[in-house]
Amino acid sequence: MRDWFPIWDQLTDAQRGRILDSLIPRRIQAGTVIHNGSADCAGLLLVESGRLRAYILSDGGREITIYRLFDRDICLFSASCMLRSVQFDVTIQAERDTELQVIPTEVYQQIMAESAPLSNYTNEIMAARFSEVMWLLEQVMWNSMDRRVAGFLLDESAIEGGTRLAITHEAIANHLGTHREVVTRMLRYLQGEGMVRLSRGTVELLDIKKLRALGQA
Amino acid sequence: MRDWFPIWDQLTDAQRGRILDSLIPRRIQAGTVIHNGSADCAGLLLVESGRLRAYILSDGGREITIYRLFDRDICLFSASCMLRSVQFDVTIQAERDTELQVIPTEVYQQIMAESAPLSNYTNEIMAARFSEVMWLLEQVMWNSMDRRVAGFLLDESAIEGGTRLAITHEAIANHLGTHREVVTRMLRYLQGEGMVRLSRGTVELLDIKKLRALGQA
Repeated sequence: MRDWFPIWDQLTDAQRGRILDSLIPRRIQAGTVIHNGSADCAGLLLVESGRLRAYILSDGGREITIYRLFDRDICLFSASCMLRSVQFDVTIQAERDTELQVIPTEVYQQIMAESAPLSNYTNEIMAARFSEVMWLLEQVMWNSMDRRVAGFLLDESAIEGGTRLAITHEAIANHLGTHREVVTRMLRYLQGEGMVRLSRGTVELLDIKKLRALGQA
Repeated sequence: MRDWFPIWDQLTDAQRGRILDSLIPRRIQAGTVIHNGSADCAGLLLVESGRLRAYILSDGGREITIYRLFDRDICLFSASCMLRSVQFDVTIQAERDTELQVIPTEVYQQIMAESAPLSNYTNEIMAARFSEVMWLLEQVMWNSMDRRVAGFLLDESAIEGGTRLAITHEAIANHLGTHREVVTRMLRYLQGEGMVRLSRGTVELLDIKKLRALGQA
């Protein structure tokens, strides 16, 4: 558990025992929605392997990815019902087949109420997610869409460990909170500039240096 | 102190004493920048009267208001250096003459490290600010600028307690993260629709019902 909780040794034996006894292992198939808005309270998710995506939805059904979670990450907002002041709806979906351990919300909440180390650590998790959302807000406010597409492709390439990405224009649009047509136009522009090569269902990154210059401009 | 900390009675006598002994009263003139980015660490600000504005800045000098603080609010991000995971820069400015009590960062941090109630309450403050930023992100992503201007004017009218607002187009643009020209165009559109009347340095709200219908559309 130290992988997820650096403060594990600062919990009492009893607290550690309660967490360990409560753990529920889950295997989630890629594409499954695990948590859907604030009404839902699936519990704290400890990611063992796989990948989760947290996103928000507009009334019209548009999506924007607010962050992603990888091995050894903790998903806090799937237990957001324990924080009264969380007044927003996040949807959590498995992007890949994912293995998790779930800590039930009431168990976590009880221990957080009595343990300053766990509460302070939860604060740090929230601050980290807050930082990701602030980064996104800055991107959306000050960055043009061509830069955001370039930045997204580079991030994706780093995550996948390769330059040939199997991803649709629709999926990219859903990450970036825009329309498919906008993404298609941007990708064609990038192709015209020799930065990518497009084919059905894939985007191949040809000129990482140029993409990086654009993404960080 | 119960006005700011509903959990005041859950602190020990010693903890309460340390907080009370550390308080520094401050009077801030309207327009003063109190906190500027993560390098700065002014301490926790307890607002007694007045108004603070938290905003972010683009490299090009554009601003967007992320939230405002009023009487009995706590400004947490002026002490963000105590949270390692806060990786973003917020600027805090007094919008009106403001009276504050400051709790020095190191005092607050020490007590938070030992007190689960204070740490949990800090979590709630952060979750409340997080919720405001998520609301803003949704506005920026899914709402058109005419709706955002209408919503801003209604909020402003509620804060000021009147329908005649002394505010420049530039100031509105800095709240909403856009250019003055865009705001001027929107206000002229609203004037054409009979919702507002414009004169030098003021915006008068004429048709609250119509503005509300637009702002909530």
